[in-house]
Amino acid sequence: MKLHVDLGQNGYDIIIERGALGRVEKELDLSRKVLIVTDSGVPSEYAAAVAKKCTEPLIVTVPEGEGSKSFASLEMLCKKMLDFSFTRSDCVVAVGGGVVGDLSGFAASAFMRGIDFYNIPTTLLSQVDSSVGGKVAVNLGDVKNIVGAFYQPKKVIIDPDVLSTLPHRQIAAGLAESLKMSLTSDKELYEIFKAGSAEENIEEVIRRSLLVKINVVEQDEKENGLRRILNFGHTLGHGIEGAESLPAGEEKLYHGECVALGMIPMCSKELEGELLTILKALGLPTSVGGDLEKMLSIATHDKKRDGESISAVFVGKPGSFEIRKMPIEEWKALIRERFSSYIK
Amino acid sequence: MKLHVDLGQNGYDIIIERGALGRVEKELDLSRKVLIVTDSGVPSEYAAAVAKKCTEPLIVTVPEGEGSKSFASLEMLCKKMLDFSFTRSDCVVAVGGGVVGDLSGFAASAFMRGIDFYNIPTTLLSQVDSSVGGKVAVNLGDVKNIVGAFYQPKKVIIDPDVLSTLPHRQIAAGLAESLKMSLTSDKELYEIFKAGSAEENIEEVIRRSLLVKINVVEQDEKENGLRRILNFGHTLGHGIEGAESLPAGEEKLYHGECVALGMIPMCSKELEGELLTILKALGLPTSVGGDLEKMLSIATHDKKRDGESISAVFVGKPGSFEIRKMPIEEWKALIRERFSSYIK
Repeated sequence: MKLHVDLGQNGYDIIIERGALGRVEKELDLSRKVLIVTDSGVPSEYAAAVAKKCTEPLIVTVPEGEGSKSFASLEMLCKKMLDFSFTRSDCVVAVGGGVVGDLSGFAASAFMRGIDFYNIPTTLLSQVDSSVGGKVAVNLGDVKNIVGAFYQPKKVIIDPDVLSTLPHRQIAAGLAESLKMSLTSDKELYEIFKAGSAEENIEEVIRRSLLVKINVVEQDEKENGLRRILNFGHTLGHGIEGAESLPAGEEKLYHGECVALGMIPMCSKELEGELLTILKALGLPTSVGGDLEKMLSIATHDKKRDGESISAVFVGKPGSFEIRKMPIEEWKALIRERFSSYIK
Repeated sequence: MKLHVDLGQNGYDIIIERGALGRVEKELDLSRKVLIVTDSGVPSEYAAAVAKKCTEPLIVTVPEGEGSKSFASLEMLCKKMLDFSFTRSDCVVAVGGGVVGDLSGFAASAFMRGIDFYNIPTTLLSQVDSSVGGKVAVNLGDVKNIVGAFYQPKKVIIDPDVLSTLPHRQIAAGLAESLKMSLTSDKELYEIFKAGSAEENIEEVIRRSLLVKINVVEQDEKENGLRRILNFGHTLGHGIEGAESLPAGEEKLYHGECVALGMIPMCSKELEGELLTILKALGLPTSVGGDLEKMLSIATHDKKRDGESISAVFVGKPGSFEIRKMPIEEWKALIRERFSSYIK
């Protein structure tokens, strides 16, 4: 199945197809120098499968995790391309999740001021969300995505088969972002979640999520307006990510899990019970340990820079949204009222 | 005087006006956070003049020279903006030559994926050339401009008065780039050089040079074709820059000086004598020490990557050019024939 992102001369196709990884040469021009970037958490056979189809492949594996989205990694990738005499007509292929895509996409955008970039997302989260839209970046200290570019890939290859090696918890975290898109923009997709059949209809879930994302990106490539609906649940989610307290031995919540929690108080009270049922069925968390005030403070830290108000996205009925500009204090009060009972 | 660069929504004005530096607030929106980037070779009163007009200025002075066009400087500038809580609605102002413009323009393009960038070039070279066109970059090792972006400024302010503090040798190096533009594209500008009156008509020289550059950039923003005429004289010039031999105590040739030399064999034989007279009158070099074979090797190193041919720009009659794709060896032979006598 093929979807098209219509951004004029920056437009591109997304291929969704089981087994696509094994025949990438049909979709991508690999008869040139190809820098394949992957990370240590991705099964190495995925990058190898791409390399096998290239005339001059060069695989670079960065360590798994946000730490790889750094200036140091960016410089390293550019240095690799320079050392291997890459020209403007060579290309970069990302094989991995959001970290790999964001880092290598930024490197592709900057090397010689821009060479071709292909994205082959291998996590559900990156398949339904980050691989499309052209936001590439690295982090600076603990501030995420602060340095980057808008740079569209030439093509995105989504092979649902690669999800079979993904732990269920990562699948659930990806589904949380998809659920987010259904809530603001696609009632039918929401019905799939409500029916508890998202996992068995994973291709349809990917397709519908991408249609939502594509629609937003086409209307707002550089993130000036509509694109903020993609941040539904993300403001509080970001605060949770930064301030959850961890019992000894427990792993940090994933980004998608924090977003799942962050959506709860942004949905109408009528919807709350249903949403909780869906989250539980997917194996997503419905409570979190930590200090709510600290979460609120982290959540609004960025916003303060934009003055003292916040553009909050609310969902009353699935498939529709409302963006309300409100004073930060008012937003905090609302979250206190609606979310305190979810703090362990 | 105002020129406009028509690049659709990336379009911008260039203001050429004596004393413009003293009233920048009339042209630039400085009522926000402003990162002013300058270097140690630029009189500090220029950056101070801009800062005086800002509500929240932050001046960063990098060391003079190419060494500042580095990943480390880029990260440092982004870090400064982060530390001072810059948002997407704040801006960067470059006050200096090409190094400052290229570095700070790239930082502006990447911070939060792009914030406003103003350029106030203070060398003649940057006034007639690098401040316009949107090519921003840093170097990697000894490879120039290999990592960067196409990112247009919001406005360029050219104050010819700042040239009064510039050593004559730097003026001459800037005029070399202007002479280059006249040779390929502006016969009337060439006549000013031929009449020996470029310096006394500096505003007209700046204006006409920029019109050539604007015309090229408007037709070829991302450097896919026509823009290569701006590289007239640069291929050999680049080789000279990398391989000239320096007698003890003598300073390296400037970029503009190398370009001046590089143009000689690319002009028709009929034009050669006249060109030499102009170069001498401007105080530009007409000979260079070093090993020609080494120069040729450096000059063609990049090109080799594009296969074994080179797109050479030739000028028969001033104001017109011819781009000829030729085998590298043929180009080298031509340079040997035409340039050996200029090697000291």
